[in-house]
Amino acid sequence: MSSTQDNDVRAYIASHTAPFLQDLRDWVRIPSVSADPDRAPELRRSAEWLVAALRETGFPVAEVWETDGAPAVFAEWPSGDENATTVLVYGHHDVQPAAREDGWDTDPFEAVERDGRLYGRGAADDKGQVFLHTLGLRAHLAATGRSAPAVNVKLLIEGEEESGSPNFAALIRAHADRLACDTVIVSDTGMWAEDTPTVCTGMRGLVDGQLDLYGPDQDIHSGSFGGAVPNPATEVARLVAALHDEDRKVAIPGFYDGVIDLTARERELLAELPFDEKAWLRTAKSHAALGEAGHSTLERVWARPTAEVNGIHGGYGGPGGKTIVPSSAQLKFSFRLVAGQDTARIQQLFTDWVAERLPAGIRHEIRFWGGGTRPCLTPLDHPALRSLVRAMGRAFGQEIRFTREGGSGPAADLQDVLGVPVLFLGISVPSDGWHSVNEKVEIDLLFKGVETAAHLWGELAEDWRAEPWQRTTGK
Amino acid sequence: MSSTQDNDVRAYIASHTAPFLQDLRDWVRIPSVSADPDRAPELRRSAEWLVAALRETGFPVAEVWETDGAPAVFAEWPSGDENATTVLVYGHHDVQPAAREDGWDTDPFEAVERDGRLYGRGAADDKGQVFLHTLGLRAHLAATGRSAPAVNVKLLIEGEEESGSPNFAALIRAHADRLACDTVIVSDTGMWAEDTPTVCTGMRGLVDGQLDLYGPDQDIHSGSFGGAVPNPATEVARLVAALHDEDRKVAIPGFYDGVIDLTARERELLAELPFDEKAWLRTAKSHAALGEAGHSTLERVWARPTAEVNGIHGGYGGPGGKTIVPSSAQLKFSFRLVAGQDTARIQQLFTDWVAERLPAGIRHEIRFWGGGTRPCLTPLDHPALRSLVRAMGRAFGQEIRFTREGGSGPAADLQDVLGVPVLFLGISVPSDGWHSVNEKVEIDLLFKGVETAAHLWGELAEDWRAEPWQRTTGK
Repeated sequence: MSSTQDNDVRAYIASHTAPFLQDLRDWVRIPSVSADPDRAPELRRSAEWLVAALRETGFPVAEVWETDGAPAVFAEWPSGDENATTVLVYGHHDVQPAAREDGWDTDPFEAVERDGRLYGRGAADDKGQVFLHTLGLRAHLAATGRSAPAVNVKLLIEGEEESGSPNFAALIRAHADRLACDTVIVSDTGMWAEDTPTVCTGMRGLVDGQLDLYGPDQDIHSGSFGGAVPNPATEVARLVAALHDEDRKVAIPGFYDGVIDLTARERELLAELPFDEKAWLRTAKSHAALGEAGHSTLERVWARPTAEVNGIHGGYGGPGGKTIVPSSAQLKFSFRLVAGQDTARIQQLFTDWVAERLPAGIRHEIRFWGGGTRPCLTPLDHPALRSLVRAMGRAFGQEIRFTREGGSGPAADLQDVLGVPVLFLGISVPSDGWHSVNEKVEIDLLFKGVETAAHLWGELAEDWRAEPWQRTTGK
Repeated sequence: MSSTQDNDVRAYIASHTAPFLQDLRDWVRIPSVSADPDRAPELRRSAEWLVAALRETGFPVAEVWETDGAPAVFAEWPSGDENATTVLVYGHHDVQPAAREDGWDTDPFEAVERDGRLYGRGAADDKGQVFLHTLGLRAHLAATGRSAPAVNVKLLIEGEEESGSPNFAALIRAHADRLACDTVIVSDTGMWAEDTPTVCTGMRGLVDGQLDLYGPDQDIHSGSFGGAVPNPATEVARLVAALHDEDRKVAIPGFYDGVIDLTARERELLAELPFDEKAWLRTAKSHAALGEAGHSTLERVWARPTAEVNGIHGGYGGPGGKTIVPSSAQLKFSFRLVAGQDTARIQQLFTDWVAERLPAGIRHEIRFWGGGTRPCLTPLDHPALRSLVRAMGRAFGQEIRFTREGGSGPAADLQDVLGVPVLFLGISVPSDGWHSVNEKVEIDLLFKGVETAAHLWGELAEDWRAEPWQRTTGK
């Protein structure tokens, strides 16, 4: 794209910063805390505010979608161009709880500008990153002289992300036709650092659940019976210990089958990130790094599957001692998965592995929390990813690097139900204080995000025309 | 001893059964529940009742000994014979809680005779087994024509055994001079079965405590950090799993050093006991036997040391899942020890072993509940044990077999402080319902116990004259 157009975009944005920030502040003032049932009216007010803002932006369709919980917002702006590709932007309008007395310097629901930052709950997560698409789209139109975007733009902004998106999968299944698209852009993540713009290329998947082991019918005396009957607390520990081999690789046979390893280039790129392990450990509140041999910390958290104990409980836990063989033990486990691993297959492998390892006299029960969340990954050479990287590069005037996300999220539902690649356009930085006190967004980065969004539609339209991509393997 | 004397003992007991049972019923009616602070006056009443009964029996010394908790009773009856050996009888006058509404067929504190049994709380544990020594001693005197016993008899009957004997070690240390003896006879155990009289030859020792592992300073997100930092719940499980090798032997180096293994003869004798593993498993509320390879179930619970998990706790334990790496994990552990193992050394071995096995980033803290309880064991060929077996054989007219006790108890304190062998004279049977509803004692077995006690003093006096024994290795 021409640098003239880049200048036009920048000029348009510059002339609209004040009303944009004013509108965002208005939205942040609505305390749309999805975890708080008393705030249900605020969730609706937030959704309706957004519908109005999107109509104001020019979306011919903008409506509230009901769920069994908080309402979502859907909007659509067709391109009008023949064979235009369709893009769905995902974000959320609910926020984490926040109260001044938690330690905020200012009222979390009075968005305050200070030192180039906008402070307030949702400023970064996720109202700021959703709202950047409004001005981005206007700048796209202004700079290109178009009356409608170069791609068909759809938005789906849910209202329960901070509560675990309990109704999201059902919502997108119910509306799969209207949500049909070629690419999903998730604007609910971040980048490496203020001076290191990055694009996230994938998220880990998740299989989690609970394993209960049952031994004696009740707690029994360890003096009378200890050493001669199986102890479920010992057995659960033996299972956990057997989950990893000496190299801290997951030792369940078949676990790594199909895993799409990092390419040499990806490892190189990750290694080039200015990673400070000591600083990372401080963020992790941890005192040492430990993980799968042969991989760096970043590779371990972003690109390698894991088996993790989230909780282990059995027997006596009160003060002092109690010499019993406990009757039962419980394990809360989670597996983070990477591209190439199938949630159902991992559930089956674990189920079989547990059954084979337990001694006679220990009954067990495994429950999984649903079918799991699939991993998602966009290859570095995917044309849509190239579009996003170019758009971001134009906005930042810097080389765009790559990250991945270790967590798992509703992005995977979009990938699965809609069967399309999921890209991540996020401009938040680690210091933004998501879920913490004094959440903020860096205003200059916010406008870099607006600029990226302004460039993205043209880039995507062009790449699609040159090389239309297939839908991914959806569920 | 002559069968004439046996007949005399039997005749004397037969002519005193009614008042003996009447007195025991009176004692059982005193609800001396040490766990119930409201029953403190009953504990005192019980102690005073016993002092009076012992004076009535003929003890020249019988007195209440105060502790920081419930009172104990001490009594002494010197033999008068030159170089007579001294025997200390141990038992307790407190009882477990009991209430009719727990499911008792009759009032637990109204001792009721029915079908050859005396029902009531404490009938077996331990008032019946303490009280048998009164009539036993009278019968000994009557049958031998003596005016004082053939050995110096001392009694120490504590009042807090059912509450864990918190003041017992201090009590015996404070009175070690007056308690000095050559042999302890514990009358607070049982025998194999109604038709299988046995003598217990040892108890396991105990080292127990708590291990706390600390990882991240707070619970952290398993998506963001999982797989790259040490997880204390995983690490505690790896420790527990490493406690045993594939043969379920304890894998801490040095753990078995010095263990006095069962002799071939002892293994033979244990194997001859009419052991029904299915019935044992029902008692153990367990669904399979599992333990150290190369040993039978009885050997495992009586004569082999163990490492047991009493409790394991870390991370999330509520409903559903929570994808965290937990901040800490806690292990409640206990080791049962057998003769030849030293409590302090086992504590040190475990402490060193834990420290060597934990990865960087996991801080830990071990606490032991006191210095541990030493194991005790009397060799089969010990002269005092032979005396007891002969006395019991005369009473029962049957071969006396051997058992051991898997639990650990205040007997070990007596062994340690007084430095003498501890023998077990018990006539209770597994169906007596200790700590349960409808506790009872089989009246015919109770009088076999009286008869055993009547024979014991003469047997011990004779064996001592022939082959006086050394004190054991006390602490």
